[in-house]
Amino acid sequence: MVLIHESTTRKSWTTKLDAKKERLNSVKDFVDGVMIPTHRIVDALERLIKPSDRVVLEGNNQKQASFLSQALSQVSPTKVHDLHMIMSSISRPEHLDLFEDGIAKKIDFSFAGPQSLRISQMIEDGKIELGDLHTYVELYGRLFIDLIPNVALVAADKADRFGNLYTGPNTEETPTLVEAAAFRDGIVIAQVNELVDELPRVDIPSSWIDFIVVADQAYELEPLFTRDPRHITDIQILQAMMVIRGIYEKHGVQSLNHGIGFNTAAIELLLPTYGEQLGLKGKICKNWVLNPHPTLIPAIESGWVESVHCFGGELGMEKYVEARRDVFFTGRDGSLRSNRTLAQLAGQYAVDLFIGSTLQMDALGNSSTVTKGRVAGYGGAPNMGHDPGGRRHSTEAWKNMMTSDDPLARGKKLVVQVAETFQDANTPVFVESLDAITVKDQAKLAVAPVMIYGQDVTHVVTEEGIAYLYKTDSSAEKHEMIASIAGVTPIGMKHNPKSSSRLREKGLIALPEDLGIRRADAKRSLLAAKNIDELVQWSGGLYTPPAKFRSW
Amino acid sequence: MVLIHESTTRKSWTTKLDAKKERLNSVKDFVDGVMIPTHRIVDALERLIKPSDRVVLEGNNQKQASFLSQALSQVSPTKVHDLHMIMSSISRPEHLDLFEDGIAKKIDFSFAGPQSLRISQMIEDGKIELGDLHTYVELYGRLFIDLIPNVALVAADKADRFGNLYTGPNTEETPTLVEAAAFRDGIVIAQVNELVDELPRVDIPSSWIDFIVVADQAYELEPLFTRDPRHITDIQILQAMMVIRGIYEKHGVQSLNHGIGFNTAAIELLLPTYGEQLGLKGKICKNWVLNPHPTLIPAIESGWVESVHCFGGELGMEKYVEARRDVFFTGRDGSLRSNRTLAQLAGQYAVDLFIGSTLQMDALGNSSTVTKGRVAGYGGAPNMGHDPGGRRHSTEAWKNMMTSDDPLARGKKLVVQVAETFQDANTPVFVESLDAITVKDQAKLAVAPVMIYGQDVTHVVTEEGIAYLYKTDSSAEKHEMIASIAGVTPIGMKHNPKSSSRLREKGLIALPEDLGIRRADAKRSLLAAKNIDELVQWSGGLYTPPAKFRSW
Repeated sequence: MVLIHESTTRKSWTTKLDAKKERLNSVKDFVDGVMIPTHRIVDALERLIKPSDRVVLEGNNQKQASFLSQALSQVSPTKVHDLHMIMSSISRPEHLDLFEDGIAKKIDFSFAGPQSLRISQMIEDGKIELGDLHTYVELYGRLFIDLIPNVALVAADKADRFGNLYTGPNTEETPTLVEAAAFRDGIVIAQVNELVDELPRVDIPSSWIDFIVVADQAYELEPLFTRDPRHITDIQILQAMMVIRGIYEKHGVQSLNHGIGFNTAAIELLLPTYGEQLGLKGKICKNWVLNPHPTLIPAIESGWVESVHCFGGELGMEKYVEARRDVFFTGRDGSLRSNRTLAQLAGQYAVDLFIGSTLQMDALGNSSTVTKGRVAGYGGAPNMGHDPGGRRHSTEAWKNMMTSDDPLARGKKLVVQVAETFQDANTPVFVESLDAITVKDQAKLAVAPVMIYGQDVTHVVTEEGIAYLYKTDSSAEKHEMIASIAGVTPIGMKHNPKSSSRLREKGLIALPEDLGIRRADAKRSLLAAKNIDELVQWSGGLYTPPAKFRSW
Repeated sequence: MVLIHESTTRKSWTTKLDAKKERLNSVKDFVDGVMIPTHRIVDALERLIKPSDRVVLEGNNQKQASFLSQALSQVSPTKVHDLHMIMSSISRPEHLDLFEDGIAKKIDFSFAGPQSLRISQMIEDGKIELGDLHTYVELYGRLFIDLIPNVALVAADKADRFGNLYTGPNTEETPTLVEAAAFRDGIVIAQVNELVDELPRVDIPSSWIDFIVVADQAYELEPLFTRDPRHITDIQILQAMMVIRGIYEKHGVQSLNHGIGFNTAAIELLLPTYGEQLGLKGKICKNWVLNPHPTLIPAIESGWVESVHCFGGELGMEKYVEARRDVFFTGRDGSLRSNRTLAQLAGQYAVDLFIGSTLQMDALGNSSTVTKGRVAGYGGAPNMGHDPGGRRHSTEAWKNMMTSDDPLARGKKLVVQVAETFQDANTPVFVESLDAITVKDQAKLAVAPVMIYGQDVTHVVTEEGIAYLYKTDSSAEKHEMIASIAGVTPIGMKHNPKSSSRLREKGLIALPEDLGIRRADAKRSLLAAKNIDELVQWSGGLYTPPAKFRSW
């Protein structure tokens, strides 16, 4: 016998669907099929979004649903207010205007590069309620658990009249954001640059989309991963040589992720020169997960690179990628297919190595790019920059990190942090205590916003040398190793120079000379391309850099 | 000046595309648009697949591309041989016949439940070359890095003439497998149960699909997550009460994943009875990631469950899910949208708690379901059953795991292992050394196949009590805590009973009486449903269990 209350059986289980139908009906008078007229978008948002809704607004460090974010900032706060915004990135001024104006109240996000100072102040002033900071993928994960959106506002390149979407090279996280809303009776509105009769390919099917609006201008797209080789310094070249010799070659790194930065750009540009001299082509750095970095062009052209899977696209690299489809993931139409969710998954679980730079590191290897007064968030680095506890397969490099003969011992992902000992003359990178701890209290965070935890870091590289942190479990020894390559920073100054030779003998640290690298050889002449123009030449004219990088 | 060799510039960058075109041409004589005639499938595979290809064959613990796997096992080994198979699950006899017959040579996989004994023997006999064991998501990750497939063989419910796919409730990992091949000039062949003029919804767009074949019978689908409450024991009920009281209530667990098993089925069936008595409705267990477990029906009907995101579907639950769309993720057509990749991502990063059962555990909490002579693989448990180092957001339960006042301290995911002290009268669960260590050597694995590592486990629950492992970092203390609830197993027998009272006082372990639970109350009468028939009643007749579960 089962007792089921009458009241239970009469309960409605379609409240979300009913609410959606009501919203769809409310715009019937001016919507044509799935098309919202461009000039009616503010009106449409006022009817389709309800107070306190959870709203996903697409915008990461590259593609921005800029037409929709501007429209949202123009709705009447008496009609639409107290929204709970969910955003990969807070990048544009109107993203925060929403909160000043009362349209939105609470935010969960991943990254706030250009707006990190303002958001920090707004949190302190109580103008914005902070949900939490996330990596990209954990924020995507919550879209299916406890941050299920009522509305998703996204951006695509082209749509057809049925609402099928073409996202072209910039697919990024659009399918993931759409899926969370579309399959939960939420409302999905996509801004597109263009309406066409036939799409080059379908990236997102129309049955996931409620409305299309043609934007009055193309969505914003940042060339975030373009680094002009002109700005690469001799020190960065020295560090790059150490990384290639003392890490990639030493451990046999086959698959890897490079983050944004001049340090990794230098490595990419040394593969066809220094790497070639070492006879490493075909032996290391074959399978990549990273955006189409222009600085990777010489390595691709020289035959170093078997495959590249991309989080997003890169402005100016479209034609190059199409012409190199043996290397990149492309659609039938030839253009790049990026996918931030899958690239982050691959970057977490399937590669040998993550390498990134940091602005601050403490004596145990904890690092952070947070500086005082800024709530910058994380992006994707913590996801890729840790040893994934759920990994079960092994590779040569991963096994190389095993230091114990315990029968249950396992390998490790290589997590490399590159830093110069000083950011500038007065700002040491190696510090007693991270600014992140102060920011935690200022912004009332539950935990200090650490980017990469010391326990995950296997290697630290400075202009002084490499510390092989994976070789010890002892905090005291890690401290000593880091101090020995920390130069004249507060951490480095406490170091007893005599212990360096002991650490070198034990192979716990390596100086350039231990790796057979002469500091005098670390010159810009080693770079396969010394400026953007040379990258264009390498690409056979296929790379078309954005205007701001064209200085020749 | 850039030096670019002539040879470099003349290199072809479309070798994959050219090879694909050649393969597509080879079947032109009998293919109609995208349609391969059912009776020509073996012929088609012989032309579309080349020796040594990397081939993804869909098949996880639920949906199987069974028509395609049978066809593949019928190709001529003189035409198709030495394939490198990539499979979530090795489930069907012909999956291994491929290797006996020389059609395939190497395998990378995640799970081999029913075939674990045979594959183990074949590895030992050198009949199969093992790539590696993976969790589901790390295998998916590698599809974009170093295991990029040449061919993907997948299964869907319906297709239209253009090749658009409807996967219905069983979307699972199909989109992820297809994406890896489709956007890398690979060949994608989908078997479908039915060809229709108009699809209920599009789950995968036709521009990702090369060929459709209508299968001669519907794909195999296992009701893997159905547990008949008749088989739930009083001990499992006692453990479930401890979990609800001593873990879910104590830590305020809001979001969670339940694995397969009678232990978790018992918990689900106690929420509307014992949980209700404790006044916990609306306070715990609101957001779930799990398949549509029939045993969750009473909790859903009683209003406990806000949302469920699913890895896959469950046979017989289709109508129930459609009728409860406020709770589940569904498409416009009303049927479930599952997605194993996103559910695993959410299960890893976005939930408070993972709970699973184990067959063996050592004194430090390392556990494994591997038994001697079997290479069973992992599935998804290690992915969800660890503390994700890349997580940065906090929840009440997560913060509850913080035990240090270090300024960089952070919380933890709750990872709970439930086990009875003995599998049967002669087989203790708590052992000095895991069988996994022996299997490592037998199967020549790089590391021992541990399912969940002790360092990730926060709670162990036996019929004796709960060990709150997260409260200590000391191995010696962990050992003592586990021993104190390990009964008369080898580990438990070494325990000094006197120390139990000290551990109880310190809150490191809790016995049922410490939680206010009387062992005598742990009776089957507490279950909200005692058999499958009562689940059907709770569902108002919407749940239609497969024949083998209909015993009333």
